[in-house]
Amino acid sequence: MTIVMHDLAAADPALRFSPYCWRTRMALAHKGLGVETIPWRFTEKDALAFSGQGRVPVIRDGDRVVSDSWAIAEYLEDAYPDRPALFGGTTGRAHARFINAWADGVVLGGIARLIVRDLLDVVAPQDVVYFRESREARFGMTLEQVQAGRETRVVEFRAGLLPARLVLGRQPWLGGEAPSYADYILFGTLQWPRCVSRFDLLEADDPIAGWQERMLDLFDGLGRSAPRAG
Amino acid sequence: MTIVMHDLAAADPALRFSPYCWRTRMALAHKGLGVETIPWRFTEKDALAFSGQGRVPVIRDGDRVVSDSWAIAEYLEDAYPDRPALFGGTTGRAHARFINAWADGVVLGGIARLIVRDLLDVVAPQDVVYFRESREARFGMTLEQVQAGRETRVVEFRAGLLPARLVLGRQPWLGGEAPSYADYILFGTLQWPRCVSRFDLLEADDPIAGWQERMLDLFDGLGRSAPRAG
Repeated sequence: MTIVMHDLAAADPALRFSPYCWRTRMALAHKGLGVETIPWRFTEKDALAFSGQGRVPVIRDGDRVVSDSWAIAEYLEDAYPDRPALFGGTTGRAHARFINAWADGVVLGGIARLIVRDLLDVVAPQDVVYFRESREARFGMTLEQVQAGRETRVVEFRAGLLPARLVLGRQPWLGGEAPSYADYILFGTLQWPRCVSRFDLLEADDPIAGWQERMLDLFDGLGRSAPRAG
Repeated sequence: MTIVMHDLAAADPALRFSPYCWRTRMALAHKGLGVETIPWRFTEKDALAFSGQGRVPVIRDGDRVVSDSWAIAEYLEDAYPDRPALFGGTTGRAHARFINAWADGVVLGGIARLIVRDLLDVVAPQDVVYFRESREARFGMTLEQVQAGRETRVVEFRAGLLPARLVLGRQPWLGGEAPSYADYILFGTLQWPRCVSRFDLLEADDPIAGWQERMLDLFDGLGRSAPRAG
């Protein structure tokens, strides 16, 4: 049975840009599991009522409903143990949680401050007011003010990626000799700005950029073939 | 045969304060391997000539010599596979490298800017000039200037520990249900300021502080019983 996934979509329903949903898309592909995605917009909270919460990704696998990208990764690993491993054991899973926390606590916020105004140009018409108001309340300033000065501030953002840069300078994937869920965490995080903005977050000679190119090729170019804005 | 380890020492030879050496001490204890430590000072480069480089930790295990805390952890895991695992498999090892890179690239530098002047009061007399000159050259200012304002700057340092805080709020160890080398990486990093300074890096209610207390109890209080300055 095909897994169904609610996936954040832009005005263009083919443009999918949630960093969390991208982590799940990649994890599903890693497990070799087919997926039918349902485009979802920020303001469609009712459409997720069946999951008991209001955010994506949400997957339905038969009669199982799981939300939250980390919980979904754990679910897939436990429900499909005979398929390629996402974590490589309990210690690998525990360590991956650190990388997830780093991506959520450090990288996502850094990206938001560089591209959040660009997002306003791609979200669905019914989401525009919600998106601006909710994000401006969070930052305490306008989206234009948040994004201002990014050409200079991006240097500090890049410096914050140092741990990933050090690792990817010494091994091909965060997972070692093969991609693991750790790779999908960071890749999904970076698909978000890649799909909604033309602002260059990485320098071309950054080992992270080289790794991102390899990631874009995985699973018949799942990431590379994804529609982008502009 | 007992493993021999060159271990950075202060004026008081019992005071051992290298964050890298502490990682190795804990890894050896995790493997249940006996160790004889040899106190070493920054200026005793000749004493490490046998290792082909000039930094500690260095271990000698029979006729094998290994330097660099990460390389030592990998050596111990591969040479003693039947003893408790440090990494829990190849993916766990790859993911631990990220945590190592985060500790080295983010945490160590942050700690140095809070306690580097305190170190000058504990290093061996023959190391004082070397320590001041090498560190002041690195920072481009006096040690007193580096450390100034730490009472306010520590807030930013604590914020930088967010990934570890998020993880330790959800699981007892970075390694999950049991300590792994990831725990020794961060614990060793924090033993450095703990042993040489009375400046409080963590707030008492920080989940990282609670974890640190549990770490200090491991291996019959190996970390807790270590001599501290002042």
